[in-house]
Amino acid sequence: MRIALDAMGTDDYPSPDVAGAVEAAKELGDTIALVGDEDLLKAELSKHKTAGLALEIVHAPQMISMEDRPAEAARTKLESSMHIGMALVESGEADGFVTCGNTGAALAVATLHKIKRIRGVHRPALTSIVPVRGKPFILVDVGANVDSKPEWLLQFAVMGSIYAERVLNRQKPRIALLSLGEEEGKGNALISEASKLLAQSDLNYVGNAEPKEMSTGRTDVLVCDGFVGNIFAKTLEAMGSNLFDAIRDEIDHSLRAKLGGFLMRPAYRRIFRQHDPFEIGGAPLLGVDGVVIIGHGRSNALAVKNAIRQAHQAVEGKIVEAIRDGLGQKSVPSSGQSGGH
Amino acid sequence: MRIALDAMGTDDYPSPDVAGAVEAAKELGDTIALVGDEDLLKAELSKHKTAGLALEIVHAPQMISMEDRPAEAARTKLESSMHIGMALVESGEADGFVTCGNTGAALAVATLHKIKRIRGVHRPALTSIVPVRGKPFILVDVGANVDSKPEWLLQFAVMGSIYAERVLNRQKPRIALLSLGEEEGKGNALISEASKLLAQSDLNYVGNAEPKEMSTGRTDVLVCDGFVGNIFAKTLEAMGSNLFDAIRDEIDHSLRAKLGGFLMRPAYRRIFRQHDPFEIGGAPLLGVDGVVIIGHGRSNALAVKNAIRQAHQAVEGKIVEAIRDGLGQKSVPSSGQSGGH
Repeated sequence: MRIALDAMGTDDYPSPDVAGAVEAAKELGDTIALVGDEDLLKAELSKHKTAGLALEIVHAPQMISMEDRPAEAARTKLESSMHIGMALVESGEADGFVTCGNTGAALAVATLHKIKRIRGVHRPALTSIVPVRGKPFILVDVGANVDSKPEWLLQFAVMGSIYAERVLNRQKPRIALLSLGEEEGKGNALISEASKLLAQSDLNYVGNAEPKEMSTGRTDVLVCDGFVGNIFAKTLEAMGSNLFDAIRDEIDHSLRAKLGGFLMRPAYRRIFRQHDPFEIGGAPLLGVDGVVIIGHGRSNALAVKNAIRQAHQAVEGKIVEAIRDGLGQKSVPSSGQSGGH
Repeated sequence: MRIALDAMGTDDYPSPDVAGAVEAAKELGDTIALVGDEDLLKAELSKHKTAGLALEIVHAPQMISMEDRPAEAARTKLESSMHIGMALVESGEADGFVTCGNTGAALAVATLHKIKRIRGVHRPALTSIVPVRGKPFILVDVGANVDSKPEWLLQFAVMGSIYAERVLNRQKPRIALLSLGEEEGKGNALISEASKLLAQSDLNYVGNAEPKEMSTGRTDVLVCDGFVGNIFAKTLEAMGSNLFDAIRDEIDHSLRAKLGGFLMRPAYRRIFRQHDPFEIGGAPLLGVDGVVIIGHGRSNALAVKNAIRQAHQAVEGKIVEAIRDGLGQKSVPSSGQSGGH
């Protein structure tokens, strides 16, 4: 298997990207194509022991930064590491692509310029694999689509279900809509319409889920509009940081807490690890005609390595083919733009 | 001042309700009218020292439970403690009403049956005063209105601003829309339209805020659609509980953590208090023609007392009059139902 990595992706590129690629090549035995500035990557690679590993460099003269406007960068920086990396997937020279760079740009390059969407997909969706106390679920959409239509949510559910089954190894993945409560009639117009579509589908739809249910492990795939999903995911992250910051402040301000904090350190580490997105590494852009995994800009080497592993598993699980087949099922209308909210 | 309290409101009614009322009468010197089953409340009151306190009982033969369907209960249980308590506000016999009961029912009774909305208000809004590290902000709407229109959000902002100024003592309250990022164009159609209206208004609109900004103290009033606000508020709560549960589990499972947790206990208490909604007690239903404060069903006596204090401050701050005047300003269209999304 050959996986292309945007080696100019993380905030601290190319160091975590290259280190993660070296680890992934070792762990998975795959060929990793590092896409980026050739001189920079050669220098960075020379810091690692790479004998026997299948690491390649594919030169890309441009890069897209976190500050670039996504649509504009996608349209103008045609020689960026994202464009060139995704072109490798488009042409079949690579089996998958991983980037920890500008998410909006990755979305725009993939959907508008390279790879493109799978036939029948209304809208590709960004996902996040959310770790809560060690029981991750896949959240879809987390920001690619705002003002979603009910039938988009149905497709998000189909694609999320396929990913949960084939990559996260969940049997009959349980699908829920993120909403205000279990009771019928709770939610907004979108949720109300989407829940009807889900109930009629072949999916294992278990109803609506409130935020507090995330830690119960009741749901494998949590489906929502991208605006709501983005707020939800960012609120989880913000509240987590906020509480850990508060604990850190307390530890800094009293001797008793300093000692308590020292003793709690292994416990905090375990809790942190149970909620650490870097243990998962990245999450798929679903609905495009190739494996694309997007990681966090702040990724370290571990996160990059794990994102590459997600790509490896997605390729192995034939996720693109499965989505193409899944959307062909008669329970899921592959056309029809009706039913706004 | 005379404040009516739904004494059948909390999950453990009437004990926390009555205890909170006794404390509030002591602290504020107000007359508190306990509305509920007369015999039950007499028995409960007899457990407290009430000499010299202005506590009254107003009999209500019915009550609305947490399990009741809001609209149905509001329509049929006309002799409930909520109906009778709100009728006291409607008739001017009480200056404000506090309930920790069924929120949906309180909303329905207030808006459809008693009190009603202030002339010019599109939609009354539920709020939450969110404590984050001791710097609370007011979140509006948290669930009264889904599928909001841009001009509703403008009014939520006006009402929230007035409350923040007059009750939370913020000078020129800073208003933000809850969205996906600061940059223009980020958000959905609703946010995009609402931000134009806010920018044209006399409000101190500071732009859009992401969830992570909640702990910065940059915002006094965070405005959003009720579906989004409800998800946001519940996610904060869920992530907080989740992390505290994880810490508790760790403490239960190792001796080292047990000792560490013991030493951290005062620190955890301080953090908990900084985020404890019971320190605030309740939040206003804005846009109805009287002071209505809604607390959490799980409220203890402290929370009930603090909710009554919110009512006291809202009455003192002439919040209803201020909203009526505020909506009359020419910057805020008080009619016009156009501009869906």
